[in-house]
Amino acid sequence: MEQIDILGYFAGVLIVMSLLPQTVKSWRTKSTRDLSVWRYIIYVVGLILWIVYALLIDNGPVAIMNGIGLILATIILYLKIKYK
Amino acid sequence: MEQIDILGYFAGVLIVMSLLPQTVKSWRTKSTRDLSVWRYIIYVVGLILWIVYALLIDNGPVAIMNGIGLILATIILYLKIKYK
Repeated sequence: MEQIDILGYFAGVLIVMSLLPQTVKSWRTKSTRDLSVWRYIIYVVGLILWIVYALLIDNGPVAIMNGIGLILATIILYLKIKYK
Repeated sequence: MEQIDILGYFAGVLIVMSLLPQTVKSWRTKSTRDLSVWRYIIYVVGLILWIVYALLIDNGPVAIMNGIGLILATIILYLKIKYK
């Protein structure tokens, strides 16, 4: 893997992992009033399509990374709908 | 552009555009208590690196798309810090 690709993967990992503090915060506080439900509905759909795309172009790492993102985003969406 | 690439770009546009309802909501309600500040700090850093990566590999559309995402994420981060 070239150095330039490492930068891309590192950026991707940061972007996906940035969902983690939101998941933990929403889980702990049980308060999601300020979150936009549309933000997470559109995000989840986008991630599903992105994973399909990654699988079609045979890019396993991107599929896995966004699969983790999809799990986290789905949890946040669930918490948003549950706690309003 | 192949059909498969259109899927990738469409997914990317959805993912970036999903920030819009959150930006509008936070702007209108002036309430950002439930947003995780770390989510947006890590996200902004990740997007900046991702844009640098896209520029390095000469992928203009991805750089522009994530540039829009960076603007929206920075506005949300600003609103989060301003309104707590």
